[in-house]
Amino acid sequence: MKLPRLAEQELIAAIRADFSGKKQGGLALGIGDDAAVIKPGGENLVLTTDLLVEGSHFLRSLYPPYLLGRKSLNVNISDVAAMGGRPLYALLGLGLPPSLPRSWVERFFAGMRSAAEAGRVRLIGGDLALAEKILISVTLVGQAKTFVRRSGGKPGHLLFVSGYPGRANAGRELLQSGVRSGRDRAADRLIKTFLDPVPQVELGLRLSKLGAASAMLDTSDGLSVDIDNLCRESRVGAEILADYIPISPELKRLRKSPLQDALYGGEDYGLLFSVPPSKLSAVAKLEKEFCLSRIGRLVPGGKVYLLDPSGRKTLFVPRGFRHFK
Amino acid sequence: MKLPRLAEQELIAAIRADFSGKKQGGLALGIGDDAAVIKPGGENLVLTTDLLVEGSHFLRSLYPPYLLGRKSLNVNISDVAAMGGRPLYALLGLGLPPSLPRSWVERFFAGMRSAAEAGRVRLIGGDLALAEKILISVTLVGQAKTFVRRSGGKPGHLLFVSGYPGRANAGRELLQSGVRSGRDRAADRLIKTFLDPVPQVELGLRLSKLGAASAMLDTSDGLSVDIDNLCRESRVGAEILADYIPISPELKRLRKSPLQDALYGGEDYGLLFSVPPSKLSAVAKLEKEFCLSRIGRLVPGGKVYLLDPSGRKTLFVPRGFRHFK
Repeated sequence: MKLPRLAEQELIAAIRADFSGKKQGGLALGIGDDAAVIKPGGENLVLTTDLLVEGSHFLRSLYPPYLLGRKSLNVNISDVAAMGGRPLYALLGLGLPPSLPRSWVERFFAGMRSAAEAGRVRLIGGDLALAEKILISVTLVGQAKTFVRRSGGKPGHLLFVSGYPGRANAGRELLQSGVRSGRDRAADRLIKTFLDPVPQVELGLRLSKLGAASAMLDTSDGLSVDIDNLCRESRVGAEILADYIPISPELKRLRKSPLQDALYGGEDYGLLFSVPPSKLSAVAKLEKEFCLSRIGRLVPGGKVYLLDPSGRKTLFVPRGFRHFK
Repeated sequence: MKLPRLAEQELIAAIRADFSGKKQGGLALGIGDDAAVIKPGGENLVLTTDLLVEGSHFLRSLYPPYLLGRKSLNVNISDVAAMGGRPLYALLGLGLPPSLPRSWVERFFAGMRSAAEAGRVRLIGGDLALAEKILISVTLVGQAKTFVRRSGGKPGHLLFVSGYPGRANAGRELLQSGVRSGRDRAADRLIKTFLDPVPQVELGLRLSKLGAASAMLDTSDGLSVDIDNLCRESRVGAEILADYIPISPELKRLRKSPLQDALYGGEDYGLLFSVPPSKLSAVAKLEKEFCLSRIGRLVPGGKVYLLDPSGRKTLFVPRGFRHFK
């Protein structure tokens, strides 16, 4: 989420309408999900692209190039994970200021290589350009025997999230407020979640293999927006139980409003997914391994509500998450 | 070609070495050609990505957004054409300044749609971001039953180029010097070649089907650099006959040194390819339809020579072509 939210959604809707005219052979899923899916031969290929812009998505002064290299690849791997796919190949478009030290570029590539090795991704092509600000454009190709859309959620399905939402954004705020690594372990953990997110490939694959997720996306825009996206694509509403939202111990210790962090912070790169009741027992077996929390359920209609412990029900308005601006 | 040439080549070589470690199943061709080729099922998929940066690749004041939308897609289509492939799907990463008028964005997408329809390409996904300068990152997926590398040229093969090299760069220089469309037909044609290049998909497909091109790339960096790239990848040298270089009538009429334009201008997006003697008669049949010129031949060794009509032989030093900077 980078443009003013409404403008971005409007633009995507226009593009989607504009380019959705004729069905083309081999396209299984087009604009609007975490990734597109094509079926050139027998197999589904998952395709996704992400643009990272210095000043909009990261500040050079706060971001070690090694970790930026890792994150550039990992945010795309996360999109493939959200489809239940396995990442395979990457293409890299890189815009670099002429003044950038050589060591920066070397560290960036070392980081990207480490993420590529961890994710078993191979860099197969790219383009280099001069630019005033650092620009990183990664396109990732993955495979998925079966894939999970955003749009398969039905009323009655339960909503789960992996990990502790809000940690990454809290880490970002700590970093921006001048907190540096190495002084407080809890702060370090939050900052690491922000700087070096871990895509949930294994969880996505397991859910997809089990046929357990009816809709899925990765939590990148903040929980309120992510839930809204899943509901809009699935044409359902949701009831979210505020006291079921998992709050990490670090947020409790260091932050004033940990629940607000969890509801509105972005860039966690966990998975948010809905589960039909028939698959609950299968998902229960993954709960501990992948730190899953059941946070609510899908309901008819398009509205999302937040229920507090007293049972009070309020509209859960998606609040745009912004990167650095 | 955007970074200072040597730095870019050095960087690509380093990346190539860095990421070429383990062979991964399904990869047919990696970094260093016009596009990468993967083989996920039975079929070859061609993948390429290009980054266009305002100020480096185009000036907003000189570039109508409609034509920029067309060109953003067409330069990628040209890379697929240079593999002998057929374009299928596109992903778009777009960075937009918040101050950009809505009409600019609409015209840009209208242009991209027109190129997509002409090239039978479908936009299947993308990413939007805020940025200070306009950034356009297009990734294109194509298919190719057989594909043509840069590296298959052998001594004795003849070198061909399509169209009239140097027109696009001359058009760019006219535009930058203040010449505007609608005053002189010859100038208009050059400017159009620059603003709205036509990728040579049909030629690439025909050559690939005939098995007639042993090595091929698209002419984007200027002929001297493009020939050097083909020779380096094929590990051969070349002898180029200066008076066989096709000079367009417009260059003759409007430019001081039309041969220099043809040798060093870039962004033509024609095809440069080598042909084994056994395939010369097949290629001869395409000469008129695709405006092909035989400009020289590949020779042993790594050096490229330019032969003038008197038979004088000089080293043909590749001279970096720069976009706007």
